[in-house]
Amino acid sequence: MANDKKVQSITDIEVDFAQWYTDVCRKAELVEYASVKGFTILRPYGYAIWENMQSIMDAEFKKTGHVNVAMPVLIPESLLKREGELVEGFAPECAWVTHGGGEKLEERLAFRPTSETMFCDHWSNILQSYRELPMLYNQWCSVIRWEKTTRPFLRSREFWWQEGHTIHETAEEAIAETEQQLNCYADFYENVLAIPVVKGRKTDKEKFAGAEATYTVECMMKDRKALQGATSHYFGDKFSRAYDVTFTGRDNTIQYPHQTSWGSTTRMIGAVIMTHGDNNGLVLPPKIAPIQVIVLPIAQHKPGVLEGANALKDRLVKAGLRVKLDDSDNSMGWKCAEYEMKGVPLRVECGPRDLENNQCVLVRRHDGEKIAVSLDDLETAVQEQLVLIQKGMYDKAKENLTQHTYEAHSLEEAKKLQSENGGFIKTMWCGDVECEKRMKDEAGMSSRCMPLEQEHLGDVCPICGKPAKKMIYWGVAY
Amino acid sequence: MANDKKVQSITDIEVDFAQWYTDVCRKAELVEYASVKGFTILRPYGYAIWENMQSIMDAEFKKTGHVNVAMPVLIPESLLKREGELVEGFAPECAWVTHGGGEKLEERLAFRPTSETMFCDHWSNILQSYRELPMLYNQWCSVIRWEKTTRPFLRSREFWWQEGHTIHETAEEAIAETEQQLNCYADFYENVLAIPVVKGRKTDKEKFAGAEATYTVECMMKDRKALQGATSHYFGDKFSRAYDVTFTGRDNTIQYPHQTSWGSTTRMIGAVIMTHGDNNGLVLPPKIAPIQVIVLPIAQHKPGVLEGANALKDRLVKAGLRVKLDDSDNSMGWKCAEYEMKGVPLRVECGPRDLENNQCVLVRRHDGEKIAVSLDDLETAVQEQLVLIQKGMYDKAKENLTQHTYEAHSLEEAKKLQSENGGFIKTMWCGDVECEKRMKDEAGMSSRCMPLEQEHLGDVCPICGKPAKKMIYWGVAY
Repeated sequence: MANDKKVQSITDIEVDFAQWYTDVCRKAELVEYASVKGFTILRPYGYAIWENMQSIMDAEFKKTGHVNVAMPVLIPESLLKREGELVEGFAPECAWVTHGGGEKLEERLAFRPTSETMFCDHWSNILQSYRELPMLYNQWCSVIRWEKTTRPFLRSREFWWQEGHTIHETAEEAIAETEQQLNCYADFYENVLAIPVVKGRKTDKEKFAGAEATYTVECMMKDRKALQGATSHYFGDKFSRAYDVTFTGRDNTIQYPHQTSWGSTTRMIGAVIMTHGDNNGLVLPPKIAPIQVIVLPIAQHKPGVLEGANALKDRLVKAGLRVKLDDSDNSMGWKCAEYEMKGVPLRVECGPRDLENNQCVLVRRHDGEKIAVSLDDLETAVQEQLVLIQKGMYDKAKENLTQHTYEAHSLEEAKKLQSENGGFIKTMWCGDVECEKRMKDEAGMSSRCMPLEQEHLGDVCPICGKPAKKMIYWGVAY
Repeated sequence: MANDKKVQSITDIEVDFAQWYTDVCRKAELVEYASVKGFTILRPYGYAIWENMQSIMDAEFKKTGHVNVAMPVLIPESLLKREGELVEGFAPECAWVTHGGGEKLEERLAFRPTSETMFCDHWSNILQSYRELPMLYNQWCSVIRWEKTTRPFLRSREFWWQEGHTIHETAEEAIAETEQQLNCYADFYENVLAIPVVKGRKTDKEKFAGAEATYTVECMMKDRKALQGATSHYFGDKFSRAYDVTFTGRDNTIQYPHQTSWGSTTRMIGAVIMTHGDNNGLVLPPKIAPIQVIVLPIAQHKPGVLEGANALKDRLVKAGLRVKLDDSDNSMGWKCAEYEMKGVPLRVECGPRDLENNQCVLVRRHDGEKIAVSLDDLETAVQEQLVLIQKGMYDKAKENLTQHTYEAHSLEEAKKLQSENGGFIKTMWCGDVECEKRMKDEAGMSSRCMPLEQEHLGDVCPICGKPAKKMIYWGVAY
């Protein structure tokens, strides 16, 4: 890999989706592999997408009273081990620091795989009274989970994320927080990333290690595989008890607070690529695109063209948009391909004749539509198009989700639907983990979630025939 | 420490500056110690200061074309070792990951102490032509250096920073970048943190491991000790050669790019505390204060007071200021002490009589001055005061720096001046490391920098009597 410095072309999306994905990640210069196996580098263009995601999410978190903090990255093994389920879930994937300052450490330290233990330890040191509750904390950082097989954004030994951690006076308040943050993620996926989601609860088998309940937003990629978008967990007072986090309640008794955590990661960039991308490369929703509008002058050597293009760019920048003008010597064909590969939502073309006619041409990345607009209406027209693009991308993704969500009434039917169409298969379910395992073993599907919006598809579990408790979604997941 | 959940009062600054410092850090709720020895937690109020610093700096970096990236946190030992001086300087302070995913690693990995090696490794994989230069990268992250003794913000095993890394076609361009970033830091210290600095070059003894030249901004704390504020390094093509970073030049030959790096850390928060703080706690410059204005209603139970205070707050928020209203049941005395401890630059008091007279009272944190202002002029008056406070704080710090910078013409005189007054001692210097060591051994002072603005204090080195080459600053440093 060190030798082919540039990806020359990308694999056809219909031929090999996985290879197409990796090619786009590299050709659009989002990520590069590092010399450390399983680790990736976020390059400027990829990181700029992440920065846009961060700034929108961070503002949302702050609106509901959350504050940012920074916890130490290393966790003593004894601290990590105090909550049994968590350590069972994460210890096998930990990276361990055993030496520091030239000496062997008395106790080895885990690079954080997640920080519940650190937040609890801190709270046990500072929390005193119910008056200080809730504590609504978040941190932006990287974590390490020693995965065996890795893929850019989707599964990397180190990844970047935000992890929210909160404690509350009552269980009700903590449950409300878990729901609020799930909705926050769903809104972000749908309104910002233009990716429709199914909101639901994870089964006990699939939930976060140590959680009472895990909620998720599940999305469907273009290859109809499922991707877990973000999760929100309710812990009850289990960790509080394990880490001795207490407060004096309103009635003057010592109580344990109720806890939540919720996280979303750079995997969201992977979700964007696999939901919207095509054979020309990346397709970015306007709200997170580092460049929203690329201005390309046609026949730029002709008098007045570059000045006209620059004036046009300046007007769009002034209107608050993220705009770039490419007046390099590269050919028009090369430039079009380059900014299509980079997923820039809108291209503005202006040549000598356009400027003569007081117009320019807008070309939309996601559907190729061309619109000639008068320069008098430039700002309004461009802003309208960006709104339409955002909506158009969502609608297209929603169609994919709707078209490829199927209903099954037997294990055989579920298996057949999945192998023929992919997508989400919805069935009733008895709630028994044995049926969940059978679905995995025989149809290759894991449970995605029990949607919050339940439907009644029948009275019995199609796997075992016992009475059904919930409607559940199955799929083949990333 | 786990037992005294709150710091009750802070030590007198005149009695024990070091203890005063630690007390303020904790009582103002900036940091807390963690269960991992030598590591600290940035609490919400401390992190909010850091966020304000970050957003101002990040915008400045971007104005000059820098882009953010994220590099892996772990560095293979063999990669770290390729540049001899760097590894000699940092290896003794490294934390090492030796196990991952339940297995011993074939090669141990260092938690990054600094990332020159990673950037070079990446560049060796992607750089092709002079057309791609300069590459102007930055990353915000945490690093680990296994220090023996630690203090909040000043010396912590993990700290948060930005590290800029750039490569350029020519040495001239790289040197210009080094200078530009040094000036960027100096401006940030003086205009944002209200801390005057001395800009200069480090001696070979004090420069960054592996650098050709290290430039620094040095500041003086209230106890007249020196603090290295931020550094900017020029590497020449030394790392490029060690890591085989090459490009095809304009003349079609294979060339090595010239490199810089520059960094600033959460230690800047420590600099703010020790430059501006007093016996009532923190004093924050308005530009980085999480709360710029605290509104305190007097006799808030009386009719109209809370409404009046709220209206006043809303007006200031609308004017773009960071404002908080405290309408809790705590006493006025408690509230005043609380927001003084937290260093809020301006307090707005409004009681029934003020509101009757269409006025309120502004109280400045840094000098206690009270100003009655008409509510008609509220926004203008508050904004003016914040500008005056920012300037007043700078002037006060500048006075401290000027008053305690002394000139010496012999080692004895330098020693006496330091022991009697502290501060910076400026002398001529022959450039010999042996004289530098003697100053350290006999007068307890390290060289701070050779200021860019040189003065001619004499012709000989006062330590050895040989011809002098440079004027140099000495001090006792944090």
